[in-house]
Amino acid sequence: MHNFEFVNSTKLIFGTDAMNKIAENAKLFGKKVFVTYGGGSIKKNGIYEKVMDQLKDFTVEEFAGIEPNPRVETLRIAIAQAKKFQPDLVLAVGGGSVIDASKLIIAATHYDGDAWDFLVKLDTEPEKYIPLASVLTMSATGSEMNRGSVITNWTEHIKTHFGKEQTLPKFSILDPQNLYSLPSDQSAYGVIDTYSHILEQYINTTKDAPLQDRWSEGVLHTLIENGSITISDPKNYAARANIMLSATMALNGLVAMGVDQDWATHGIEHQFSAFYDIPHAAGLAIITPRWMKVVKESKLAKLAQYGRRVFNIAGTSDAEVAELAIAATYDFFKSLQVKMSMTEWNIDNKHFALMTERLVQHGVGKPNLTAKEIGQILEDCLK
Amino acid sequence: MHNFEFVNSTKLIFGTDAMNKIAENAKLFGKKVFVTYGGGSIKKNGIYEKVMDQLKDFTVEEFAGIEPNPRVETLRIAIAQAKKFQPDLVLAVGGGSVIDASKLIIAATHYDGDAWDFLVKLDTEPEKYIPLASVLTMSATGSEMNRGSVITNWTEHIKTHFGKEQTLPKFSILDPQNLYSLPSDQSAYGVIDTYSHILEQYINTTKDAPLQDRWSEGVLHTLIENGSITISDPKNYAARANIMLSATMALNGLVAMGVDQDWATHGIEHQFSAFYDIPHAAGLAIITPRWMKVVKESKLAKLAQYGRRVFNIAGTSDAEVAELAIAATYDFFKSLQVKMSMTEWNIDNKHFALMTERLVQHGVGKPNLTAKEIGQILEDCLK
Repeated sequence: MHNFEFVNSTKLIFGTDAMNKIAENAKLFGKKVFVTYGGGSIKKNGIYEKVMDQLKDFTVEEFAGIEPNPRVETLRIAIAQAKKFQPDLVLAVGGGSVIDASKLIIAATHYDGDAWDFLVKLDTEPEKYIPLASVLTMSATGSEMNRGSVITNWTEHIKTHFGKEQTLPKFSILDPQNLYSLPSDQSAYGVIDTYSHILEQYINTTKDAPLQDRWSEGVLHTLIENGSITISDPKNYAARANIMLSATMALNGLVAMGVDQDWATHGIEHQFSAFYDIPHAAGLAIITPRWMKVVKESKLAKLAQYGRRVFNIAGTSDAEVAELAIAATYDFFKSLQVKMSMTEWNIDNKHFALMTERLVQHGVGKPNLTAKEIGQILEDCLK
Repeated sequence: MHNFEFVNSTKLIFGTDAMNKIAENAKLFGKKVFVTYGGGSIKKNGIYEKVMDQLKDFTVEEFAGIEPNPRVETLRIAIAQAKKFQPDLVLAVGGGSVIDASKLIIAATHYDGDAWDFLVKLDTEPEKYIPLASVLTMSATGSEMNRGSVITNWTEHIKTHFGKEQTLPKFSILDPQNLYSLPSDQSAYGVIDTYSHILEQYINTTKDAPLQDRWSEGVLHTLIENGSITISDPKNYAARANIMLSATMALNGLVAMGVDQDWATHGIEHQFSAFYDIPHAAGLAIITPRWMKVVKESKLAKLAQYGRRVFNIAGTSDAEVAELAIAATYDFFKSLQVKMSMTEWNIDNKHFALMTERLVQHGVGKPNLTAKEIGQILEDCLK
């Protein structure tokens, strides 16, 4: 286990009564709340009304229309509005895209330069950060309990991330019932994204971190046992609650304590979604098993442990168990009814050379993947 | 899973370089540091010198002599000293006893009444709480990352607890090397205390909390795999680190999210150590298997799951697996070379009637144990 520091002060408010606690928690920060959300599904499923009812004694402005894979081009408009409104709190009502976007809003509202600076100049600091809170309506990215924010610059086809201590939400409202109306593909993507977050931290070569391993495996078990229930029985409270808690716990720093992290599949996926409008987790589902094949030798012991403990694969040779574990991973994603090749998304190899060049230049994976390995993963994604 | 709220803002600084980070973290709170510790072992193992070296640019006062099962009678003296010194930060250098004691010090220093008020009148509030930090020298209670404080009133033979949001340490220094010089019985007690903390939260009847179950089981596995190494090879860094992290994670609120908790063995142990000077975990080791026998029927499914997943016990009947799991628990504690009956501690049934009366009156266990069940556990502890 490596040396580490861990701190995560986000307050989780979880359960069937969580929506009733927005006002009492929001009022600790002031009277002016800037509510951010996406394409308007919250107006159809009743979440918008519940939020606004809680905020009836506050001064509220709204910014709607934050897209999946949120774009800095959109957020500049939101930031201009926030500069005029001067909110005491930004309340992100949505999934990871809305929360990630809102992290840029709370950072850039009291900053004179361009918002994109936060993504490319890591020492960019505003005069102050506005406190952030969230009402989670899609469970996947863990953004409700971490610092990270992934933003796309559509003009330049760049998707990258930033995170500050101050972009950690002050509180997050997690009511599993808010996930009931999610379409089945979105439910599947949430499960896959969470699964991938664990793998990026778990498939490491760090020695002597057995607790972190067990906790990662615990999340994977929970996803496997509950994932498909959220698709076949979308109003199953227990399954939604277990997936929701898993997603939050998968990326709040806990399973990362003192271990190496990889993040190769995320790095590769960001290249795909910088060029194509493919959902983030749809890309991860396709990339993950191909990535595993390429790192199989260098991460053999961990992949075998994963096969034995998570899929109960018997077998004496690590190589054999790892091979079956990769197949089981593919099968699990496929069981969630998602497309399992880039060709099905009408993506071809047109940008592969540029994507590979960018990935080699920035470095991706731990240890870094070579151009040949990246190329092999990309080509395999078409099959 | 029940509704819950979770927040824990303690910063963990973990690893071989953690001791070098005391000054930079302490200075965020001011210049005057009140250092609290126990019987002086930190002066023998070099920890005291390292702490004082970090604090060389601060104004420091010390309070030594906090005993195991810290007593309010001792702490009144510490609080009187702190009232004169007016520290900006209290730095507890020790194990759970020193940190628990320091929680009462930070609460009662700016309070005009008697310190015991915090234990018996739960709405007691001081003018302000002094920030608390810790340097952990014995890993067991989890006090370094939770609100709880257990204090004994020796005059009245009462051992009870309190906890406030403000008694959560601001930061805790966890260097596994600081555990190298622990005597083997102390190492064993740390493992047993942690194991018991998990059981109190894990052996519940809450439905649909699979992630919390897996995380609890992950801690138990880690304790079983690493516990005896800390005794046979006390300077084994990996084993010390894994036990240290497990102890902190076992009682920081995570595995308790949305589940019922029991705390019967702790409740019963507090009665023993209110009358006898027996180490807390020495009592837990003896009480736990006896408690399991008595709750076997009411918690059968979970005890069977525990047997299957943690001890890999095969068997078709839950009753059979649970019985073997209870025996395996006894054997695990015994393998840590601790006494497995109260008779070995020269304790007899003299106070059992009063202990039972108190436990029934306050209520212990979930559901509450009856007087007959408590009596059965106590008598069985003598065998």
